[in-house]
Amino acid sequence: MKAFKELSAVEAQGQLATLMKEYEQFAAKGLKLNMARGKPAPEQLDLSTSLLSAVSSETAADVLKEGTADDLRNYGGLIGLPEMRKIMADIMDVDVEDTIVCGNSSLNVMYDMISQAFSHGVAGQAAWAKLAEPVKFLCPSPGYDRHFALTEYFGIEMIPVPLGADGPDMDIVDQYVNTDASIKGIWCVPKYSNPTGTVYSDDTVKRLAALNPAAADFRIYWDNAYAVHDFEQPGEALLSLKTACNEAGNDNIWYMFSSTSKVTFAGSGISALAASPDNLAEIKGRLSLQTIGPDKLNQLRHVLFLRDMDGVRAHMQKHAEIVAPKFNIVLRALDEGLADLDIGTWTRPKGGYFISFDGLPNTAKRAISLAKDAGMVLTGAGATYPYGNDPEDANIRLAPTYPLAEELEDASKLFVLCVKIASLEALLA
Amino acid sequence: MKAFKELSAVEAQGQLATLMKEYEQFAAKGLKLNMARGKPAPEQLDLSTSLLSAVSSETAADVLKEGTADDLRNYGGLIGLPEMRKIMADIMDVDVEDTIVCGNSSLNVMYDMISQAFSHGVAGQAAWAKLAEPVKFLCPSPGYDRHFALTEYFGIEMIPVPLGADGPDMDIVDQYVNTDASIKGIWCVPKYSNPTGTVYSDDTVKRLAALNPAAADFRIYWDNAYAVHDFEQPGEALLSLKTACNEAGNDNIWYMFSSTSKVTFAGSGISALAASPDNLAEIKGRLSLQTIGPDKLNQLRHVLFLRDMDGVRAHMQKHAEIVAPKFNIVLRALDEGLADLDIGTWTRPKGGYFISFDGLPNTAKRAISLAKDAGMVLTGAGATYPYGNDPEDANIRLAPTYPLAEELEDASKLFVLCVKIASLEALLA
Repeated sequence: MKAFKELSAVEAQGQLATLMKEYEQFAAKGLKLNMARGKPAPEQLDLSTSLLSAVSSETAADVLKEGTADDLRNYGGLIGLPEMRKIMADIMDVDVEDTIVCGNSSLNVMYDMISQAFSHGVAGQAAWAKLAEPVKFLCPSPGYDRHFALTEYFGIEMIPVPLGADGPDMDIVDQYVNTDASIKGIWCVPKYSNPTGTVYSDDTVKRLAALNPAAADFRIYWDNAYAVHDFEQPGEALLSLKTACNEAGNDNIWYMFSSTSKVTFAGSGISALAASPDNLAEIKGRLSLQTIGPDKLNQLRHVLFLRDMDGVRAHMQKHAEIVAPKFNIVLRALDEGLADLDIGTWTRPKGGYFISFDGLPNTAKRAISLAKDAGMVLTGAGATYPYGNDPEDANIRLAPTYPLAEELEDASKLFVLCVKIASLEALLA
Repeated sequence: MKAFKELSAVEAQGQLATLMKEYEQFAAKGLKLNMARGKPAPEQLDLSTSLLSAVSSETAADVLKEGTADDLRNYGGLIGLPEMRKIMADIMDVDVEDTIVCGNSSLNVMYDMISQAFSHGVAGQAAWAKLAEPVKFLCPSPGYDRHFALTEYFGIEMIPVPLGADGPDMDIVDQYVNTDASIKGIWCVPKYSNPTGTVYSDDTVKRLAALNPAAADFRIYWDNAYAVHDFEQPGEALLSLKTACNEAGNDNIWYMFSSTSKVTFAGSGISALAASPDNLAEIKGRLSLQTIGPDKLNQLRHVLFLRDMDGVRAHMQKHAEIVAPKFNIVLRALDEGLADLDIGTWTRPKGGYFISFDGLPNTAKRAISLAKDAGMVLTGAGATYPYGNDPEDANIRLAPTYPLAEELEDASKLFVLCVKIASLEALLA
């Protein structure tokens, strides 16, 4: 195939007509496809079926610690079970002392951190709510829409920073963070980033750790959501942010978050945060007023089911055996359908939940709309950018995990078709 | 026995010497007693053992809704399972449409409401964080220390209002709420109130519902924590606040909270809130940014275990059979030890978790300290008042549920002894 840009107008119009016929045939099938949802597939959830019985009526009293001060059926234990803290610490690559295990949602943990900063400030600095000027966050983009949505909810001004193959553009990050005291945070999904699958390079991690923030209450919000979600073992290596920060003398600059939502059951998993002793003291001060403690029985279930980091890795290998082939279906369709056309690039993640597609400028909305009209839901255009605003209208997030393999074949072909049509239309416009 | 106030100084000193000897003997026993903890006893938790197996590896796919959009193992379902919402609605005496089921902690739900008001305001009014003058809350006292602690955390000024046998002193409440726009809320535990066991009278509920607040963002924070925690059936009746508010034309003035923490497992139960449609819309706007959804598997467990309101009542009857006799042990000791002495009054709750004791002025700290030195932990003096400040130093909260019956016998006797000593000392001072 010729690159689309090299087609004459007549050739392009001819191709477009052919593709539109193909598209009409697709649309006529009445398919119901969806590549929008970053959700585990049912067969992935089946991997954790025995978690449901890990704690049962037969669970021994000594495991439940019945009748003791640590009775897991009763109140108490603000920071979580030691064994669960250890698993989450290993996942986040920190020490158990750094780690607090929370409820079922790491998004909620992150929300609470922003909310606490807003109402009470960070590190003894003024509460963000009391500042005359709006707080600003750096948002490596494309990124995670829910980070952006909660940031916007608090009226925090979001500044997109280009996310490259090694992580965010660190020259830009340096410039902002080190000179502007209104920059209070940066959102990072450092491993298999949503949606690009990017793994931050060692150099990126070191440069983040070595920031010299103008704001004493600047923090790196390190959402390591896909820490163990590798397609192959060993997975991509991510430098320890904590170690790098300590080496740079920035002991308090980081907060980390993770969860087992895409390890065990999405929505019924275990979330956690990690932070330095100073930061933890501040967080516990809030947490002790907010709740009497987390759901320790669900933690016990997870401890008995996952056991330890080796158990987590073995379990994630089973996920990989389901997820990686699905990614390959989509990647193969993109390769076969688009490789020569010079109308887009896409990522080839080695883990995580998403493929990121960048088309020609002004094609994302149109391609997504075409897909929708033919029966396929894709993540909304712009969702991967702050304020839902992709300035190029070029990025589309693809989520291959949830559909069945056969649905993915159709979905990928339809996606390729929609991208081709939108690209020709854009080139002809 | 003569009332202590009628004793001559010599008589009082003689009595005190005798009591101190008795006290020394008690202290020498090296007992470890605790009447501070409002926790269910292990045998109460045993009542819910089968909850642990309510959802297991054998749970049918159709119950888990596997592979459907409602797969309970996957993401989604922001407001909770319909069946669980129905149970919590019945507990709170509202409709299922009014009800959102949340995580494991109703304290956390209340914290979030205050936090949302602080960051985003209520009913379109200014965020409390942005107000020049501090927000104020009415705090019927004695009351729940954790309400007060989280209110203080947000810098909200707390105004104690006397809590009588029918609820808060409504003349005072009327005066404050209807004239002072800085009054934004009132904390209420309307049934078997912590610590007094008070059930708000119909008249109190109607007067609360008929408030004419100076502040458009004033709300009644109705923490119905002990809604079904009756010692006998039928339990004390509490008028429906929602109905009363609707009849008074104050549709949006209320928020309600409850949980199954003291129904099933404390810390691993289900919490819920209820509110009017307008209020719910505001709450959902936040909730949708804060989390992807609650732990639906734990909800399913509770639905399968409790089934419905009849199931809840039957289950609570079993709790009552354990808890009521413990209350009776303490009440008997108070009756036998203190009835004629005119040095204190105490409540006789028909449900809930606490007995409230009011001694002579300036005796609570001393009695609690004496108890501590003899091996018994009681709730800290002042804890039941805003800022930990009981102006009379007279109120002590007793929590009979957690200790064993035989421990309670000792604990009650020791408590009586400590109160007598503290009272004589105060009268002699």
